Amino acid sequence: MDLTRRHALTAAAALAATPLLRGTPAQAAAPLADKQAPSFYRYKVGDAQVNVISDGANTFPLPDGFVVNAKKDEINAALEQAFMPKDKMTINFAPLAINTGGKLVVVDTGNGAGAFASSKGNVGQFATNLMAAGLDPKAVDIVVISHFHGDHINGLLTADNQPAFPNAEVLVPAAEWKYFMDDGEMSRASGERMQGVFKNARRVFEAGLNKKVTPYEWGKDVAPGLLAVEAVGHTPGHTSFVLSSGADKVFIQSDVTNHPALFVANPGWHLMFDQDPAMAETTRRKVYDMLVADKMRVQGFHYPFPANGYVQKDGNGYRLVPAPWNPVI
Amino acid sequence: MDLTRRHALTAAAALAATPLLRGTPAQAAAPLADKQAPSFYRYKVGDAQVNVISDGANTFPLPDGFVVNAKKDEINAALEQAFMPKDKMTINFAPLAINTGGKLVVVDTGNGAGAFASSKGNVGQFATNLMAAGLDPKAVDIVVISHFHGDHINGLLTADNQPAFPNAEVLVPAAEWKYFMDDGEMSRASGERMQGVFKNARRVFEAGLNKKVTPYEWGKDVAPGLLAVEAVGHTPGHTSFVLSSGADKVFIQSDVTNHPALFVANPGWHLMFDQDPAMAETTRRKVYDMLVADKMRVQGFHYPFPANGYVQKDGNGYRLVPAPWNPVI
Repeated sequence: MDLTRRHALTAAAALAATPLLRGTPAQAAAPLADKQAPSFYRYKVGDAQVNVISDGANTFPLPDGFVVNAKKDEINAALEQAFMPKDKMTINFAPLAINTGGKLVVVDTGNGAGAFASSKGNVGQFATNLMAAGLDPKAVDIVVISHFHGDHINGLLTADNQPAFPNAEVLVPAAEWKYFMDDGEMSRASGERMQGVFKNARRVFEAGLNKKVTPYEWGKDVAPGLLAVEAVGHTPGHTSFVLSSGADKVFIQSDVTNHPALFVANPGWHLMFDQDPAMAETTRRKVYDMLVADKMRVQGFHYPFPANGYVQKDGNGYRLVPAPWNPVI
Repeated sequence: MDLTRRHALTAAAALAATPLLRGTPAQAAAPLADKQAPSFYRYKVGDAQVNVISDGANTFPLPDGFVVNAKKDEINAALEQAFMPKDKMTINFAPLAINTGGKLVVVDTGNGAGAFASSKGNVGQFATNLMAAGLDPKAVDIVVISHFHGDHINGLLTADNQPAFPNAEVLVPAAEWKYFMDDGEMSRASGERMQGVFKNARRVFEAGLNKKVTPYEWGKDVAPGLLAVEAVGHTPGHTSFVLSSGADKVFIQSDVTNHPALFVANPGWHLMFDQDPAMAETTRRKVYDMLVADKMRVQGFHYPFPANGYVQKDGNGYRLVPAPWNPVI
């Protein structure tokens, strides 16, 4: 073993060394690929199949106040701890298509075909990755929405503002519907961003879907084996889910945390998009304490693809241990 | 937030609740998928493209002596810590196809089409996943072998024992070649397994490839930007690699560890397949100390797909932090 640290560091210098390469037949060089693997992944929960369908990831300069109650240096330290570049943020998006055996159920829909034009196709991949997974939007029976932020609802519409899942019933949290469709709440919403959330929800649900949605209540199944559970704070009607089949289950957290490197590691950190930060933190700690106690698999909309794993206590916070990829279902 | 631990635990009981499901149009249920996503993944190292091509994963009852110097209870505790089932082992296989921009270079070849018949197709997926990644075996210029265990060399041959990469030069570690082709060493090899390794190497290289291979030395590039580095212990000629392009690099460890949950976490544990366990441990600690010090990305043949990440110190051992999946290249 002559690999010393110095040796590895001089690897670049070794590039000048003569490669072997003798006897290789002359042939055209294989072209570099221009596309990533289609980013979908399947796993079983009892008799149900969860299809994680990436909508892509968006990378942008770390904005001031991204974590309301942490300094940029602290955020950069957390990013470095996760081997992510500093002064940047990457947000991942992972909607689901759950096949219960009887129903095909989409949970959240991603940023939509038209959104984030600045992302140059880095997001809005849900529809194409769903097709790559062999799942036809026309075959979707139910779409369940966790909350009304654009990255969860914009994919309800196609690029030409038609329903993306023409045969599906669209289920929305009753509390979220009541809040965002209330003109009084809209008039009291402070700031351009919150005004935008209200306007976008109305664009999608009123102009796009002509209000053809069914509000659902917490504590009830919204599809076979899919229980809606209250998880408010991020928004007034923010909902998580427990998918159960036989003895097997997974907790679908939606936006209980954003990126695990920041908010699973630091559950006391408040994301700029958490509407009621204190309540979001209370929800986060309750959920993660339960995940630890029950050793329960968790699926996170904003975890890096394939966006599921298990949770351990780690100092004052938690650590996400990604579930190993299974090359067969 | 009414999600209590009790609540989540009664999710199964809630299955009896009436689902909403009203208004859903009658349509045939979407069939359950019978195949996982093709398990390949691409990332850039400078101007080079690394294609991680899964050969699958093999799960089997934990054999006695899998870790020579740890008790079954200790192994089970490590598996539990990684949220893996106890009394079982899953071994992952992740060969590479590196496109340097000028050459297409395969690093190790998986278990081959005919191997592990008992695995029912769970392994031997390299050839099909390579094609799924858009890479033609005929376009491969160079195949680099890290060492002569069957899960690394058997994929050199097709199911009918023809060269799987007909236009490629096959490069093998000179020390490995010298050792396993030496009749004296073979006659002194003790035990059925070691005899089998010798016989299998001769089956592949003599009967299969008619000895058309090129031995390579450590400390030299075996392909543009791909430096071979001595990493012995696992076998007498076991080799790791550093792929460099510009300022970017990745350490391709081959079998410096088997499953990270056991051997990255416990670098002092000796795998039953390490031929010189003490030397393998020395190599392992040197490599992992370097990976920590340099914050260097590492690609591991036996890591769970996509089989790459970064290493942190963790107590008396190390922890692999998987690199986040990038939905675009």
